[in-house]
Amino acid sequence: MEKVLMKGNEAICSAAIQGGCRYFFGYPITPQNEIPEYMSRELPKVGGVFLQAESEIAAINMVYGAAGAGARVMTSSSSPGIALKQEGISYICGSEVPCVIVNIMRGGPGLGGIQPSQADYYQATRGGGNGDYNLIVFAPANLQEAVDMMMEAFDLADYYRMPVMILGDGMIGQMMEPVAFRKPEPKKLEPKDWATTGTGNSRQPNIVNSLHLDPETLEVFNKKLQAKYAVVRENEVRYESYRLKDAELVFVSYGTSSRIVRNAIDDLAEQGVRVGMIRPQTLWPFPFKAFEEIGPSTRALLSVEMSEGQMVDDIKIASRGRWPVGFYGRSGGMVPLQTDIVKAAQSMLKEVK
Amino acid sequence: MEKVLMKGNEAICSAAIQGGCRYFFGYPITPQNEIPEYMSRELPKVGGVFLQAESEIAAINMVYGAAGAGARVMTSSSSPGIALKQEGISYICGSEVPCVIVNIMRGGPGLGGIQPSQADYYQATRGGGNGDYNLIVFAPANLQEAVDMMMEAFDLADYYRMPVMILGDGMIGQMMEPVAFRKPEPKKLEPKDWATTGTGNSRQPNIVNSLHLDPETLEVFNKKLQAKYAVVRENEVRYESYRLKDAELVFVSYGTSSRIVRNAIDDLAEQGVRVGMIRPQTLWPFPFKAFEEIGPSTRALLSVEMSEGQMVDDIKIASRGRWPVGFYGRSGGMVPLQTDIVKAAQSMLKEVK
Amino acid sequence: MEKVLMKGNEAICSAAIQGGCRYFFGYPITPQNEIPEYMSRELPKVGGVFLQAESEIAAINMVYGAAGAGARVMTSSSSPGIALKQEGISYICGSEVPCVIVNIMRGGPGLGGIQPSQADYYQATRGGGNGDYNLIVFAPANLQEAVDMMMEAFDLADYYRMPVMILGDGMIGQMMEPVAFRKPEPKKLEPKDWATTGTGNSRQPNIVNSLHLDPETLEVFNKKLQAKYAVVRENEVRYESYRLKDAELVFVSYGTSSRIVRNAIDDLAEQGVRVGMIRPQTLWPFPFKAFEEIGPSTRALLSVEMSEGQMVDDIKIASRGRWPVGFYGRSGGMVPLQTDIVKAAQSMLKEVK
Amino acid sequence: MEKVLMKGNEAICSAAIQGGCRYFFGYPITPQNEIPEYMSRELPKVGGVFLQAESEIAAINMVYGAAGAGARVMTSSSSPGIALKQEGISYICGSEVPCVIVNIMRGGPGLGGIQPSQADYYQATRGGGNGDYNLIVFAPANLQEAVDMMMEAFDLADYYRMPVMILGDGMIGQMMEPVAFRKPEPKKLEPKDWATTGTGNSRQPNIVNSLHLDPETLEVFNKKLQAKYAVVRENEVRYESYRLKDAELVFVSYGTSSRIVRNAIDDLAEQGVRVGMIRPQTLWPFPFKAFEEIGPSTRALLSVEMSEGQMVDDIKIASRGRWPVGFYGRSGGMVPLQTDIVKAAQSMLKEVK
Repeated sequence: MEKVLMKGNEAICSAAIQGGCRYFFGYPITPQNEIPEYMSRELPKVGGVFLQAESEIAAINMVYGAAGAGARVMTSSSSPGIALKQEGISYICGSEVPCVIVNIMRGGPGLGGIQPSQADYYQATRGGGNGDYNLIVFAPANLQEAVDMMMEAFDLADYYRMPVMILGDGMIGQMMEPVAFRKPEPKKLEPKDWATTGTGNSRQPNIVNSLHLDPETLEVFNKKLQAKYAVVRENEVRYESYRLKDAELVFVSYGTSSRIVRNAIDDLAEQGVRVGMIRPQTLWPFPFKAFEEIGPSTRALLSVEMSEGQMVDDIKIASRGRWPVGFYGRSGGMVPLQTDIVKAAQSMLKEVK
Repeated sequence: MEKVLMKGNEAICSAAIQGGCRYFFGYPITPQNEIPEYMSRELPKVGGVFLQAESEIAAINMVYGAAGAGARVMTSSSSPGIALKQEGISYICGSEVPCVIVNIMRGGPGLGGIQPSQADYYQATRGGGNGDYNLIVFAPANLQEAVDMMMEAFDLADYYRMPVMILGDGMIGQMMEPVAFRKPEPKKLEPKDWATTGTGNSRQPNIVNSLHLDPETLEVFNKKLQAKYAVVRENEVRYESYRLKDAELVFVSYGTSSRIVRNAIDDLAEQGVRVGMIRPQTLWPFPFKAFEEIGPSTRALLSVEMSEGQMVDDIKIASRGRWPVGFYGRSGGMVPLQTDIVKAAQSMLKEVK
Repeated sequence: MEKVLMKGNEAICSAAIQGGCRYFFGYPITPQNEIPEYMSRELPKVGGVFLQAESEIAAINMVYGAAGAGARVMTSSSSPGIALKQEGISYICGSEVPCVIVNIMRGGPGLGGIQPSQADYYQATRGGGNGDYNLIVFAPANLQEAVDMMMEAFDLADYYRMPVMILGDGMIGQMMEPVAFRKPEPKKLEPKDWATTGTGNSRQPNIVNSLHLDPETLEVFNKKLQAKYAVVRENEVRYESYRLKDAELVFVSYGTSSRIVRNAIDDLAEQGVRVGMIRPQTLWPFPFKAFEEIGPSTRALLSVEMSEGQMVDDIKIASRGRWPVGFYGRSGGMVPLQTDIVKAAQSMLKEVK
Repeated sequence: MEKVLMKGNEAICSAAIQGGCRYFFGYPITPQNEIPEYMSRELPKVGGVFLQAESEIAAINMVYGAAGAGARVMTSSSSPGIALKQEGISYICGSEVPCVIVNIMRGGPGLGGIQPSQADYYQATRGGGNGDYNLIVFAPANLQEAVDMMMEAFDLADYYRMPVMILGDGMIGQMMEPVAFRKPEPKKLEPKDWATTGTGNSRQPNIVNSLHLDPETLEVFNKKLQAKYAVVRENEVRYESYRLKDAELVFVSYGTSSRIVRNAIDDLAEQGVRVGMIRPQTLWPFPFKAFEEIGPSTRALLSVEMSEGQMVDDIKIASRGRWPVGFYGRSGGMVPLQTDIVKAAQSMLKEVK
């Protein structure tokens, strides 16, 4: 398959459009402005619509509206901009409409900074909005993965009628790598007979809403939602294991930081220290079953994140007390150094001796 | 100490004013409208200000502004309204200013319903906004506790320079119970020399901001924040244990649902089944150490929530694989019945035999 | 030419699309909701975009953006909704970008009512926003006129690079009349080389802005704007005279009220009372020169409006003291009766005997 | 009476507080930021409230709310900020609640510039919002006048239950002049028994609203409003005549430009050219009757404005064709020079010889 050398943000956008995206609503924020810029230029060429809204809140509600009308629609923003969208995301999940959300994370909390970060793990995986809901959260570690995930995202969103989030950082967006645009195996998708596309006077109006004033009805809805999430947990977990066999220590890391961890692992291997990695490709559903592949030689888990340790919760849950869970992280836009990761692993191995 | 029979929402508001609250900014939403109504009537009488803002977003940013100027300020809302405030809360935490936030939860996701719920556990404890931050989250189970927590909340917020959230539901607000207004032991509070109170031309202006464009500076800030959170985790964990001794099964439950669990426990005791409860009074910091009090007779933990099981994460982390963690919950505004809780316990005990 | 029997709002929208409109941004308000409804259904069929914005303010700023990018774009609203757009309209005029604005007036001030009105004459002709600017304001009195004006509006807007407003009321929108869609004689339009359409890396970026911090520059801009308005005043005044010859009294009336006045004139003629009418078809530029056609038999002017007499200012200016100017009006959604107009004329004629 | 040398903006604010103002809601915009700055510092000292709202629209609606509750409340802004408030002002007028609005005009249209201007004459006198309504519009030409008008504004607003606007420009705000704070003769004010101050369970709730869905009711309201405006026109017209006697030419000018005109008049007098001035102190109601003082020697009127001639309409109406009406103006922040005004008068006198 032909590979093209492309810049991350352009590759992601091209994949979105190839994946069927025709509507984009957003509001500018660094460091993801190349995405709306690209979409504003390219979407009209395929009969699509780009619109810069009045605010992040307006944007996510336009996504909600377009999605409710059956369109393939996406928005993108960065950390505080995504925080502003939490109510809208909760409405979208409460209405079971599909869409794709890209978060190119920057340092927080608050305005924070504009350098790469992974500090929105909680926001992405626990839902920052109200109620019991989830998004499928993809965490690409390289450009090919970002492109593959983006091309599949709209299908997955439609299939499950739920948002899919691509959780990246500025590094993914700025780097250049060769990528191939592979059409994902087509999902068998039902027609969107729930969408508000106009009745043509031939049926009752469809209603897209997250309001259920009767608590019994709302509970039934919630149980149905949970049943759907159980299916997603069963079918859509993705992860990569690396050198787990005979590993004394297993890193858990995703996205940009996992790339550096991988180098640290090879570095340690050269020193004769056997360490491996579980790299979640989906943060929700989290790859709990990956931890069952861990062998008897492993004495500790070590989370490496560009945050203050938000993924540690999920790793502890996965660990069930079988291994101590350590954490090494940088935050605020700082990127972990390979040498520091190596040291963190050595120090943890010493600790658990 | 004299006790007065009062309605929940009034008692909470009276406690807030006695606790020093002088500013209230909010936007109406069921089922918490009695709180702004009370504040709009009573705050002016003590020289305070009540203001209904244009939106939830305006309200939380007014809280941010008043807090930044050193005022004792609160807002209240219900689930989707709190979702709208996530960016603002992240800014407040990123600026280290104190405030109090009341969330009278209703069923979700989205607009959901207006009946009581506990489905915002994630939103409250993981932060729905961006970045690494936390709130102190109080979960009162009765009116006296609500009043005590509210009276202490403003002191705690000032002491740690972070928001304190009171996470309640419509039941707490609507019930009548006798309460005593006990002044909390006064914290030794530093003067707010960081607040933007006007320089009087005698000092450099204070700046309240969450923006740190330099990543090293932002990381230093984040490490400082984490160090503070470590102190809070050390000092402010609150919980209640109930009949843990010899318990075969330990419930974990908070707020309104814990009241019903307590009755179920007594019920089971009469049947000769020994069960107990850990009741977190703070959801963040979560009372992990409470689980060390669990004795050898315990064979299982059972979370009872008015949600689809959001607290289960923290219980699993606390359990470290020592006990299986079960879940029984109602959602969407449905309240668990005592008899169903009893059955859930019996069924779990059978399972783990 | 073929005539079709159509409902007003549909005919107006069809004319807009035939006139080249491809973008519509609006926010719902009675009594003009049939317009966005039609546009939401029909615009996508011609590759256009309909978008319901977050608010009237968002809508007019999207109009500003699309117009700045060279698109043919319109919005519609009703009186208080148009009030909300005043700042945006001022920006559009200060940036010299073309667009079309439809105001289907309802009774005011404030929320007022939802019945037909002409109480936005000042808002339309004096500009409700800040600074020295004008819109071309069309006031159709029947469906054919509405269709003709709408088909010409986009050309005129582009030609002069200024907004054209169609000022109507609910009656025009709801009535059915036979209409023919006549292509207007094509204006020779310059290419929009000022629009922000992307530089293609082959020219300097265009800037669409209303900001001129240097007062000399801003004054030069204002003088240029006034020079353009002088040309519009010279070339685009439209009006209809009716039975001016030998008239003792001349009505001045526009839109829906002019239709009733016309019947009153015929009624009076049958009684032997010679009265006529000047009917402005453009409210700005106002047809001052029409008053020079008034003959020596005329003893008074009488304005008939569905407002409290806002057009009287312009009539007095036109009159220059030559005739007394009377006023008969209904407001708040009340429509003048033919018999009352007859009486008002008789009474005024008695007064000026 | 003691005079104090003060800066304009401070004097205006001090007068407002002495006039009873206790609430200020606004949003920052150059060149009036000294007003909110002063109010934010001083209002709390007298038990008042200053609040910076989320937007101009939020601010004017807070003014509406506070006024509806019977408070003495004001807002201030500059030209485009006032444009944003037009809907709110229309609501306030349609609800007959009193308030004070300060517009420190800057050049327009759109964002324009930040230098002094008088280009909002239409916006102020014709109402930029929808429906038939008016504000009392004061145009101070010096600091003492500004202070006097401000001290009276709240009384007048309460007396007539309508907004009073102070229309100034940056010059008034920045200059220093000696002023005396004279309590205005107290108006006999009715208690605000229409205000929403809480029923105390002893009366039916008051409703403050601008909605009248029944057109007959709305028309009755409008006729009542017009009757009130007729009283205001009768009683509240203010103007100053200067050297009208034997004047060959009469300037009409207000505010800052009238100060320069006055110098030009004295200059011309020294050259033996007799010219005078009518200086409106209220722009609405406009001092039409002032023009009846004009004597037989006058051959022309000449409007001098810092705009493109918006007051010319009212002067023409006042003139009733008796005198030609000329115009000399600067715009965009440019201030007319005395010498140019002299020349404009000479040139007009030559023209009408």
